[in-house]
Amino acid sequence: MDQIPTILDGTVTSPAGFTAVAVAAGIKKENQLDVALVVSENDCICAAMFTKNQVVAAPVIVDRETLAVNNSRLRAVVINSKNANACTGEPGLANARTTQQIAAQALGCEASQILVLSTGVIGVQLPMTKLEAGIAAGAKGLSRENGRLAAEAIMTTDTHPKHLAVTVNLSDGPVTIGGMAKGAGMIHPNMATMLALLTTDAAVAPDVLHKLLQTAVNRSFNRISIDGDTSTNDTVLLLANGASRTAVSDPGSITQFGAALNQLCTALAQMIVRDGEGATKFVEIQVTGANNEADAHQIANTIATSPLVKTAFAGSDANWGRLLMAAGRAGVPFNQTKINLWIGVHQPDDLQLVANGTPAQYQEAEAAAVFAQPEFMVRLDLGEGEETAVVWTTDLSHEYVSINADYRT
Amino acid sequence: MDQIPTILDGTVTSPAGFTAVAVAAGIKKENQLDVALVVSENDCICAAMFTKNQVVAAPVIVDRETLAVNNSRLRAVVINSKNANACTGEPGLANARTTQQIAAQALGCEASQILVLSTGVIGVQLPMTKLEAGIAAGAKGLSRENGRLAAEAIMTTDTHPKHLAVTVNLSDGPVTIGGMAKGAGMIHPNMATMLALLTTDAAVAPDVLHKLLQTAVNRSFNRISIDGDTSTNDTVLLLANGASRTAVSDPGSITQFGAALNQLCTALAQMIVRDGEGATKFVEIQVTGANNEADAHQIANTIATSPLVKTAFAGSDANWGRLLMAAGRAGVPFNQTKINLWIGVHQPDDLQLVANGTPAQYQEAEAAAVFAQPEFMVRLDLGEGEETAVVWTTDLSHEYVSINADYRT
Repeated sequence: MDQIPTILDGTVTSPAGFTAVAVAAGIKKENQLDVALVVSENDCICAAMFTKNQVVAAPVIVDRETLAVNNSRLRAVVINSKNANACTGEPGLANARTTQQIAAQALGCEASQILVLSTGVIGVQLPMTKLEAGIAAGAKGLSRENGRLAAEAIMTTDTHPKHLAVTVNLSDGPVTIGGMAKGAGMIHPNMATMLALLTTDAAVAPDVLHKLLQTAVNRSFNRISIDGDTSTNDTVLLLANGASRTAVSDPGSITQFGAALNQLCTALAQMIVRDGEGATKFVEIQVTGANNEADAHQIANTIATSPLVKTAFAGSDANWGRLLMAAGRAGVPFNQTKINLWIGVHQPDDLQLVANGTPAQYQEAEAAAVFAQPEFMVRLDLGEGEETAVVWTTDLSHEYVSINADYRT
Repeated sequence: MDQIPTILDGTVTSPAGFTAVAVAAGIKKENQLDVALVVSENDCICAAMFTKNQVVAAPVIVDRETLAVNNSRLRAVVINSKNANACTGEPGLANARTTQQIAAQALGCEASQILVLSTGVIGVQLPMTKLEAGIAAGAKGLSRENGRLAAEAIMTTDTHPKHLAVTVNLSDGPVTIGGMAKGAGMIHPNMATMLALLTTDAAVAPDVLHKLLQTAVNRSFNRISIDGDTSTNDTVLLLANGASRTAVSDPGSITQFGAALNQLCTALAQMIVRDGEGATKFVEIQVTGANNEADAHQIANTIATSPLVKTAFAGSDANWGRLLMAAGRAGVPFNQTKINLWIGVHQPDDLQLVANGTPAQYQEAEAAAVFAQPEFMVRLDLGEGEETAVVWTTDLSHEYVSINADYRT
């Protein structure tokens, strides 16, 4: 599948029929943007994926309830940053529902047509008076020009807004997919909240949309995380309003649309990794030669989350023993004498470090030169089967400790 | 069970019939101790627990083979630091076997009566000439006075040797258990190598010894780790030489001896945590009200290994949302509205932070004061059942990143 050109300044309002607004409602300090509204001019089909954490935030509970009764007439999403509305009990649930009502009133639709997303500190009730005033003011300023500002309003410790769009030419005409995301504390959704809102003007049936989203998320946002290990608020929403009047229904257009969605999600996921807290390195971990994809993914994730591996990345130390140790504790059986390991900057097979489980012939300086780059690749081959997985990760730096030791102060 | 007084300057040579020696064989730089021999004057029963990592070091393979043919006539253990003899292929296995032969010759016994342990850098062959000379020289200097030096010789990034003994008065007479351990890179055996050698002059049958060791390790060294997630070299050995002529065979003495062994292992495990790389805090995580102990252990471990929790500890930030988030992603089902959370310095229930899943009434300054202490406790109650687990952990500090970014330089 060829790469579709991405629209770098594209946003959630790039697809036809979507508008947005960002307001400084006073949840964050000093007049910073903290509430975003993304609105469709007509009803949307919605596909959604939520956290698998046992502790779930009020907006996740309320959105699940809402989508259970209405997944085909959605009109808008309200997102606030700085406050996660998590561990807030019944008052928190009531506040999430009130937010739906406030937005419905401001936009002239029903509460069940509104979804809500929150991200930020856990255990604090939402300042509803501020939020209500913000939504009311915002509803008057909706525009197709505000997509970038909306991406700014959902940031927490992100250093820049993350947004993108792609246009794919189907046989019946072009459709556009836009998206924005906010990053996770570290670079794993299991560590802190990851939110993504995707929009499209394609007309897609609910079951097709859900399946395409699931595939795209599993190959993108879930490749920067551990399966099933997500924060209290993690959510990915995809709204399809059909405004392009182009249907994604035949197998060919579904394949094309799916590929574009995968590409958009992968780009957003990689933006999150690159902007990980304190990150100085972007590392692609490839695991090949596995008996199945789940095994490959499990090993890649274990390497990507090992503090000893991540500090070695930070120190530009090609200490491959830590990579093998992490692989070995992933809970996947393999034969250590069949392992091969390579690293490289532009391709994963540039320099072999391990051959059949023992050190290969290479110069330490060559390996250190690769690890010193801001971006590099690692490939671990198990020599067992044909399946592979790719995970993107970053290093564990002093800056990460600083950010997270002082997060609330 | 009452606490048995520990002998703080006790070592592996505190039990009758054991001697030790430590030499600077030149594996480490600058004349530092790097090889230890611990020898029994008569044959020992041996119980052992090894890493569950898929990538296992040569000494682990060789010791498993040795114990499969002889677990009742062991005479000595040779331990070297600075080199893990892991990922060293056939030459590494040959070197481990040669080490057995060298020691057997020097001590006048058979190679199958020798166990070998290694810890340090992965992927480098042992310098056998240095090791051979070191063992030959060491064998001439065996003494009951050298227990502390042996504990020093097995250190890698440990800042002090870890050793202890307990004497328990059984109805038939007193028996002594001694032990030494080396710390893990972080404080989890899944992160870096943890070695422990335990000795006793009690006479214990192999099956009883194995069962008692398993119980003790599961409640001590495995409480600073994730089950089944261990490094390439992790090993705990327990040698019983019967030199006290007191048998541990009736139910009463087995219970007493087991309690003493648990106590010794717990003390050594806690020493490892307190000396964790860059550690500035010692935190006891209690999970109560679980349906079973495995659930409680899984949640306690997930909290104890969360980078966001550990950086909050480092920053003395009582950010309990991270504790709940970590608990929620442990893969154990529970009802978030039944969760209660307390913290305390001298007891785990001093200050309630979370009541039924929502913030309790407390002053932030009170919570911060607890987290500012060098040692404190956290208790998370799930409100599901009666089972509990305790895990000991530490913080994730700048110093940890510094040590591990530069480990090999």
